[in-house]
Amino acid sequence: MKHAPLVDQLIHAFTCLPGVGPRSAQRMAYSLLDRGREEGRRLGNALHAAMDGVQHCQRCRNYAEEELCPVCSDARRDSTLVCIVATPADVLAFEQSGEYRGQYFVLMGELSPLDGIGPRELGLDVLEQRLKQGEINELILATGTTVEGEATAHYVLDLAQEAGITVSRIAQGVPMGGDLEFVDGATLAQALRGRRPFES
Amino acid sequence: MKHAPLVDQLIHAFTCLPGVGPRSAQRMAYSLLDRGREEGRRLGNALHAAMDGVQHCQRCRNYAEEELCPVCSDARRDSTLVCIVATPADVLAFEQSGEYRGQYFVLMGELSPLDGIGPRELGLDVLEQRLKQGEINELILATGTTVEGEATAHYVLDLAQEAGITVSRIAQGVPMGGDLEFVDGATLAQALRGRRPFES
Ligand SMILES: [Zn+2]
Ligand SMILES: [Zn+2]
Repeated sequence: MKHAPLVDQLIHAFTCLPGVGPRSAQRMAYSLLDRGREEGRRLGNALHAAMDGVQHCQRCRNYAEEELCPVCSDARRDSTLVCIVATPADVLAFEQSGEYRGQYFVLMGELSPLDGIGPRELGLDVLEQRLKQGEINELILATGTTVEGEATAHYVLDLAQEAGITVSRIAQGVPMGGDLEFVDGATLAQALRGRRPFES
Repeated sequence: MKHAPLVDQLIHAFTCLPGVGPRSAQRMAYSLLDRGREEGRRLGNALHAAMDGVQHCQRCRNYAEEELCPVCSDARRDSTLVCIVATPADVLAFEQSGEYRGQYFVLMGELSPLDGIGPRELGLDVLEQRLKQGEINELILATGTTVEGEATAHYVLDLAQEAGITVSRIAQGVPMGGDLEFVDGATLAQALRGRRPFES
């Protein structure tokens, strides 16, 4: 004797979410069934729309609903200046600082060989091509200050130096060992203004 | 500049879940978009199926996909013995104990006047009717030991006594297989008051 099958199926499906174990999953299912059927349907619709409709920008790899994301298709942004970040949340943080008018390249992760995340998984082969084609004048490195973030920054630095392109790194005004997305806009703006040449 | 609208919509929809704030919601959305599209679609399907297909058993109020839940439609169960519980999870716990062959009445909550949860919201008017119709011989109270659980138990006790029906309550005491030192004082005091002759 268990729950009604549709209830068990819903509880099980919730456990695919990060940080959600069987107990939380049960609480989520009960909550929607007991007093949130409309919200449950809305979440179902949002899931289908996003899973089917969200792709990656062909230029910067950020989430996009068309070939290019809004930043990349905005002609007023300086496409010769590219900021390298790890996640879409980092782009959001930069945009909220209001300080940056260039474009981005979103790695969707950081180098982590033990997890099978190498340069190709981060699109760094594509970035290398673009650097060689000469359409980028300056790179700003804004990966995190963790070991993986450092390794990623150095890898990109090598690519840029091979292509003879100016590289800077956002100032270490950002707290060490922290994720970029938790940094407030003012700090991030300061770090951006204080960027300095990157030396290996 | 924000996320792609479908991504923002998904993040927002996740915050309808209990215990999920904007940060967790973002983590959930990224996780599905980056490496769980199929799981995301499966969760979407499970949500729609459950929101549309799960109703309440017309007899015991537990979740059901038909008019009666499997327990209520099982002719081998004793329908004159009814156990009063707060949630579908409590039914699950009883069923897993393998000890109980009666039926249930699932309140889907406990009395909490300040939250607008009175007897009618718990279906206690329906239970009162069934008690008066004489189809139930014995009630077992198994609501929680919180203030709300106690209040609910006493309310049901009154209904049963009015109808002249035998009422018992599951024993409160120390959990089986646990060390006594980890049991809180209130539970231990209750276990002491409830002591019974020891039979081998
Ligand atoms: Zn883009
Ligand atoms: Zn039932």
